[in-house]
Amino acid sequence: MATRAAVAWEPNKPLVIEDVQVAPPQAGEVRIQILYSALCHTDAYTWSGKDPEGLFPCILGHEAAGIVESVGEGVTEVQPGDHVIPCYQAECRECKFCKSGKTNLCGKVRSATGAGVMMADRKSRFSVNGKPIYHFMGTSTFSQYTVVHDVSVAKIDPKAPLDKVCLLGCGVPTGLGAVWNTAKVESGSIVAVFGLGTVGLAVAEGAKAAGASRIIGIDIDSKKKCCINLFVRPYPVADLFSSRATLAILMEIAKDFGVTEFVNPKDHDKPIQQVLVDQTDGGVDYSFECIGNVSVMRAALECCHKGWGTSVIVGVAASGQEVCTRPFQLVTGRVWKGTAFGGFKSRSQVPWLVEKYMKKEIKVDEYITHNLTLAEINKAFDLMHEGGCLRCVLNMHA
Amino acid sequence: MATRAAVAWEPNKPLVIEDVQVAPPQAGEVRIQILYSALCHTDAYTWSGKDPEGLFPCILGHEAAGIVESVGEGVTEVQPGDHVIPCYQAECRECKFCKSGKTNLCGKVRSATGAGVMMADRKSRFSVNGKPIYHFMGTSTFSQYTVVHDVSVAKIDPKAPLDKVCLLGCGVPTGLGAVWNTAKVESGSIVAVFGLGTVGLAVAEGAKAAGASRIIGIDIDSKKKCCINLFVRPYPVADLFSSRATLAILMEIAKDFGVTEFVNPKDHDKPIQQVLVDQTDGGVDYSFECIGNVSVMRAALECCHKGWGTSVIVGVAASGQEVCTRPFQLVTGRVWKGTAFGGFKSRSQVPWLVEKYMKKEIKVDEYITHNLTLAEINKAFDLMHEGGCLRCVLNMHA
Repeated sequence: MATRAAVAWEPNKPLVIEDVQVAPPQAGEVRIQILYSALCHTDAYTWSGKDPEGLFPCILGHEAAGIVESVGEGVTEVQPGDHVIPCYQAECRECKFCKSGKTNLCGKVRSATGAGVMMADRKSRFSVNGKPIYHFMGTSTFSQYTVVHDVSVAKIDPKAPLDKVCLLGCGVPTGLGAVWNTAKVESGSIVAVFGLGTVGLAVAEGAKAAGASRIIGIDIDSKKKCCINLFVRPYPVADLFSSRATLAILMEIAKDFGVTEFVNPKDHDKPIQQVLVDQTDGGVDYSFECIGNVSVMRAALECCHKGWGTSVIVGVAASGQEVCTRPFQLVTGRVWKGTAFGGFKSRSQVPWLVEKYMKKEIKVDEYITHNLTLAEINKAFDLMHEGGCLRCVLNMHA
Repeated sequence: MATRAAVAWEPNKPLVIEDVQVAPPQAGEVRIQILYSALCHTDAYTWSGKDPEGLFPCILGHEAAGIVESVGEGVTEVQPGDHVIPCYQAECRECKFCKSGKTNLCGKVRSATGAGVMMADRKSRFSVNGKPIYHFMGTSTFSQYTVVHDVSVAKIDPKAPLDKVCLLGCGVPTGLGAVWNTAKVESGSIVAVFGLGTVGLAVAEGAKAAGASRIIGIDIDSKKKCCINLFVRPYPVADLFSSRATLAILMEIAKDFGVTEFVNPKDHDKPIQQVLVDQTDGGVDYSFECIGNVSVMRAALECCHKGWGTSVIVGVAASGQEVCTRPFQLVTGRVWKGTAFGGFKSRSQVPWLVEKYMKKEIKVDEYITHNLTLAEINKAFDLMHEGGCLRCVLNMHA
């Protein structure tokens, strides 16, 4: 079938809306009409050309929601008309990862999704004038229609608003799950969140739900603008130009998500880890790095309390970068971990997250600062690069 | 009182057996007649002058057993005549560390033991001709009599042989506890142990007891000599000069402790982490670094299985050195931890370890390769530096 999609022909060049041929799903595959897709920093990272595994031309996008259009042979868990969220982290329930019970990192289709193709024939289902276009993260949701493996499709409640729950395909679950699944934050804990973008705010939300006693948000000025857009309406526009006022506004917004205190590293001469250790009688119980900066990852570990502090790396660092610390930090009881998709098993737990949203137990709407269309996708990326949004949702058929 | 002790007057100069005055115990202190003391690499590290917190002159030693000689005011848990193991890791049962239940790193007397003095008056109890001699690790067991804080004394079964259970003051519990308390190795796990000295062999022993299915010992040639001394008698001396034979002997010895396979990194061109990943279908479930080498710490993390592999740093690295890895290693599910005294709560659990030894549930005798006297202490350190022993136990009153 023919459809419209944003094609990244080359690294770092504007995406081009093209007429794309989308082949029918083969055995074990599902073709989905994508209705809404949000933008995430991982899309921007690969698009930038800095991702050594990035393949071009490709169709980016991995945080979306849609409706099943058709299914290939042997697909039993979904059928045309089902509302679904495509999941870049598959869940086959059969591989040693799925069976272990210790991880969500299913390995079933990884070799194909990493290579930008489908498992069945190691080929792409996308083409433009006969030229194959690579898949991305096994999802490629910047297309009105996409083809994914059946192990990558979460069937959700058809009553859920797809323009909102598309966010449950990546950023929000990553933050919530980092707290609930990876760190397992207990009631009464002191938590530090580095980076107050979507993922960081979702960490704060998750920590609040877990009963944390203090949630310390850490961010630098440049990020303030991002959050300020969120609830800009209640504040006089003039206030946005006053640095003192913007800090106050950021704090108000972050508090809605659970942040109880705000620390700007630029306000201190000491390293941020020392500032936090001093403010928490020895360190925090849990810290989360939600930026992807290896220096901040080190600070996040080192602000943890001796004896039990646990630090979780959530952000994705640029290729080739390394994290370092003195081993003494670990020998004296700190634990260093990481998380991918918040440790959630995608097909099993994304529908559960949708249910929690429907019961108003988790926020989703609050992370959406902008609504644009597929045709405006380059403008949406500009907004992200300026730090001018949290999540921007594209209406794929407007 | 006057006694004999080995004094380290200066870094890296031979220890001198001196007539030392040992002051009476003050409130909350215990004076112990040390009967046996073993040597550990941490003593050698501080003695070398490379430990930036090392203080001179001092009396080293921290792996020992003895009998309480006298107690200061307010000491209720031990009395003269009790058999005890002095513990460099205190356990006060009152501080926030002890109360947390998550760590054994009691903080009660740390500020004093780190400064080489006693809490009560921030002074030493040792002197030579009126010149104060610093304490070491709150134990200073290379003395026929020493003074320690009451929170650092584990009372043990008086029937236990002190020339053996002195080892339960450091190395053996560190290895066992790294497996049982810090990693919590499950039955069926694949375990890698880097460095087959006393601590590494104790890790293997602990992993065997935990039901590990494979225990892979990793060491380089230079360490073979160390282990070969252990059970040298069953083998013809000529065999010790044949490299092929020594490897076979090392494997036999390591197997007694639970090691099921042996890998010598020098036999491979690939990095050792890749060798292990290839030999274990994706990596080990648990790894332990028992050397104190930051490159090996990295290898130990990176040989762990994606999704759940946990690596525990047990060795003590030299001051200023750092561990590094790509954050991707953590984001894809590996966990980096460390352990001190194997996570055992000293006063509560050292007596329990002594009981396990008495019931023949853990090895101790098997780690002792040499028995010397206090007067021979410099010879004992030479043996250690040559890799010529596992544990050497000094008879302090011979």
